[in-house]
Amino acid sequence: MQIKVLGSAAGGGFPQWNCSCRNCTLVRKGIFPGKVRTQAQIAVSADNRSWFLLGACPDLRAQIEVSPELHPRDGLRQSPIAGVVLSSGDLDHVLGLLLLRELQPLRVYATPSIQRLLREDNSMFAMLNRVSAQALWTDIIPAETFALASSAGESCGLKCEPLPLSSRYPAYTRRHRAAEFAPCEALLGLIIEDKSGNRFAYMPAMSQVDDGLLQVLESTDLLFFDGTFWQDDELIKIQGSGQTAGEMGHIPVSSERGSLHRLATLRRPRKIFIHINNTNPMLDESSAEFSEIQKAGWELAEDGWNIQL
Amino acid sequence: MQIKVLGSAAGGGFPQWNCSCRNCTLVRKGIFPGKVRTQAQIAVSADNRSWFLLGACPDLRAQIEVSPELHPRDGLRQSPIAGVVLSSGDLDHVLGLLLLRELQPLRVYATPSIQRLLREDNSMFAMLNRVSAQALWTDIIPAETFALASSAGESCGLKCEPLPLSSRYPAYTRRHRAAEFAPCEALLGLIIEDKSGNRFAYMPAMSQVDDGLLQVLESTDLLFFDGTFWQDDELIKIQGSGQTAGEMGHIPVSSERGSLHRLATLRRPRKIFIHINNTNPMLDESSAEFSEIQKAGWELAEDGWNIQL
Repeated sequence: MQIKVLGSAAGGGFPQWNCSCRNCTLVRKGIFPGKVRTQAQIAVSADNRSWFLLGACPDLRAQIEVSPELHPRDGLRQSPIAGVVLSSGDLDHVLGLLLLRELQPLRVYATPSIQRLLREDNSMFAMLNRVSAQALWTDIIPAETFALASSAGESCGLKCEPLPLSSRYPAYTRRHRAAEFAPCEALLGLIIEDKSGNRFAYMPAMSQVDDGLLQVLESTDLLFFDGTFWQDDELIKIQGSGQTAGEMGHIPVSSERGSLHRLATLRRPRKIFIHINNTNPMLDESSAEFSEIQKAGWELAEDGWNIQL
Repeated sequence: MQIKVLGSAAGGGFPQWNCSCRNCTLVRKGIFPGKVRTQAQIAVSADNRSWFLLGACPDLRAQIEVSPELHPRDGLRQSPIAGVVLSSGDLDHVLGLLLLRELQPLRVYATPSIQRLLREDNSMFAMLNRVSAQALWTDIIPAETFALASSAGESCGLKCEPLPLSSRYPAYTRRHRAAEFAPCEALLGLIIEDKSGNRFAYMPAMSQVDDGLLQVLESTDLLFFDGTFWQDDELIKIQGSGQTAGEMGHIPVSSERGSLHRLATLRRPRKIFIHINNTNPMLDESSAEFSEIQKAGWELAEDGWNIQL
């Protein structure tokens, strides 16, 4: 299968509009030793004809335009984008759906609770269902593997295993919904597998790593993992207040309980950090932090990467 | 005052992700005789320190990054963007607000009905009010001129006259809301005036032009006007179905009832089409349509334009 990294930054992108941390400042001066990044977005295809998006980020319009694989091919209004798999309701993971509203057929996979969060609590999503041949919403049952198919029902040679990761719904979820939404439907890790058994995991928001998860990750060939923050108190240091990485649902890269340490035993998968926040020092390719992740066998996802599995 | 055109296309931008009309196809081949455009967005400042956005379009992140005036200047988290004036609830006019959610103080002007449409019917907008010093929502009363001010109350040397234009709410508005929302609060034209009396109008969505409006426009120095479609049935021809320009709330540029003809008598303002749809033949600068608007004294707004009034 073909995997395309359309974007690799956390919410807000890099640089971020209201940030003048060291990284953002050096980027704007044109002297940053590293790459700018749009918000995290993966596309995958088994046949290079039908593509599926993992999430739908707010930068999708620009990301599609720089990706010839995703341009229309037949007919005046058409797209090779057959569907979207949502793993959470986070804004940086779902807002792009509203950019795909031009009366285009599209399969959208999401858990029943995330569908209710989007469609019942946000009237804007009605724009995806103005005509009959538009968004076809399809349930994800946590832990039940499903075949990816277009809205016309064509199988595309890929299946998806949705791993329930956390009961944490987005901060915009209304309070009374906590009792109504299923805890196991809030946040998923996605494992995509093709017909030859090649597998990759997409996990841009991880609050912890247990032994069961380690075993699953060791069964994959490629891992895109949460690289949001280097340190637990990274945002507090920049903003002077706010939440720790842990409180925001992200395990930091560094420290004893961080991902570098927790995932050090993985042998099989190629390991790539994605969803990297603008404040993360490892974005600077001349930094000690960047050296450290490289020595540990990790890479930083870059916008535009094509990976063949 | 300083006016910056951050974007000039209609919803979907140019090219549009799922479109292979003649314009979009030639752009992707790199041989289009004209410019690509992000979605319509204006920023204005009287002092080149505090900026106000007219609407908040989905391309705002990229538009801010290419505009040094809008980069943070003081402090680790800061922005010269003091506020946003909303003239409708259209997705291509409001989604960008959700990109400005990073706990930043921001004044948002909107009619009470548009505020209810966004904040009561779309839980995502709660992300703009997670802490106290974040979005300060401020009522626009149709036809009542108000001074633009930051959320800290600093006046910025500009005032805004909001003209009620239509009772048409966005297509995603829930049916029962029709009776609850005030008809005059659905869609506004904005006239911005500085302390020297320089005035410009921003009217990207116009379904008709009456004599009263002509008189108002003749009082301005600069007019940004709805240039969405050349012909009334332009989208139907491309898609094979759908709505006319009129049914979508846009007066076409051409024909007896079109804007070129209806606004031909205007003498004072510089006249600029904005919110131009990807299908509009006047985007092609080698076309008869582009010649025709030029001969009639009109220009096409381009991304990145700076205008001093």
